[in-house]
Amino acid sequence: MITTQPLTPEAFAPFGDVLDCVGTPDKLINQDLCERYHDRARLDFEDGRAGISLFNAQARSLPYTLDMMERHPLGSQAFIPMNLAPFLVIVAQNLDNRPSNPLAFVSRAGQGINFLKNTWHGVLTPLSEPGLFAVIDRIGPGDNLEEYWFDTPYLIDHA
Amino acid sequence: MITTQPLTPEAFAPFGDVLDCVGTPDKLINQDLCERYHDRARLDFEDGRAGISLFNAQARSLPYTLDMMERHPLGSQAFIPMNLAPFLVIVAQNLDNRPSNPLAFVSRAGQGINFLKNTWHGVLTPLSEPGLFAVIDRIGPGDNLEEYWFDTPYLIDHA
Repeated sequence: MITTQPLTPEAFAPFGDVLDCVGTPDKLINQDLCERYHDRARLDFEDGRAGISLFNAQARSLPYTLDMMERHPLGSQAFIPMNLAPFLVIVAQNLDNRPSNPLAFVSRAGQGINFLKNTWHGVLTPLSEPGLFAVIDRIGPGDNLEEYWFDTPYLIDHA
Repeated sequence: MITTQPLTPEAFAPFGDVLDCVGTPDKLINQDLCERYHDRARLDFEDGRAGISLFNAQARSLPYTLDMMERHPLGSQAFIPMNLAPFLVIVAQNLDNRPSNPLAFVSRAGQGINFLKNTWHGVLTPLSEPGLFAVIDRIGPGDNLEEYWFDTPYLIDHA
């Protein structure tokens, strides 16, 4: 059983970036009517370029059964929720080319994330409908998806 | 007086891309639990790279006074609303290096946009709080902002 934890930049840093408007903005623009939190994602695209795609994913609920994780060896991947709602973010360390010790985070409304290149993560798992996300990831040739199916699935639930 | 119109891909095409989950997805992923609308923005960054920033903008209301428009000569700029709410999108043609004949669109909840490089546009104008947006634009050196202030402001209101 994996229990969920709040999504914080500190806990998430080894896996990627938390994208939100917390703390002091980097600058004020538009006659001070807009805060800019500048360049917050470690984007990294090998042999390709950034693209914006939209995902519409079916909502899941807790407890959630984690039977597979995936990674993208050629690029980072950002999930920006468009629904002002929390979602479930699952990541794992890499050990012998397998995901090891998965961690599960639940975001606050208004938080997005960016997975670093080649980071094991769960598929997109909104916790409410509509599961609308903008996704900033690599557009390019070659196979950028690796999946790992667990022999024994994990169960993820509230703490 | 400029009256607002609905944001549609056709009407907006000369200025940029409408980013939403409408129509047939380009592919189904994650065991068919997620629709992917693939690579929908004409990103274009000169002498720089894509970055993800977050904007927190004060909400405006209609009627809205348009006294300035701006453009970014070195890159496209995408506004992805994170609040599932409509926002106001103002664009204009270029005539003698000035914005000409501004148009005003109101988006549907769940629609983002991408301005093509060097397109005259209004500043980010959410119509409700919180005015949270992910912004995908150019990170790089040089002056990427040109502003034009109107002698006589325009008033923008509902049709």
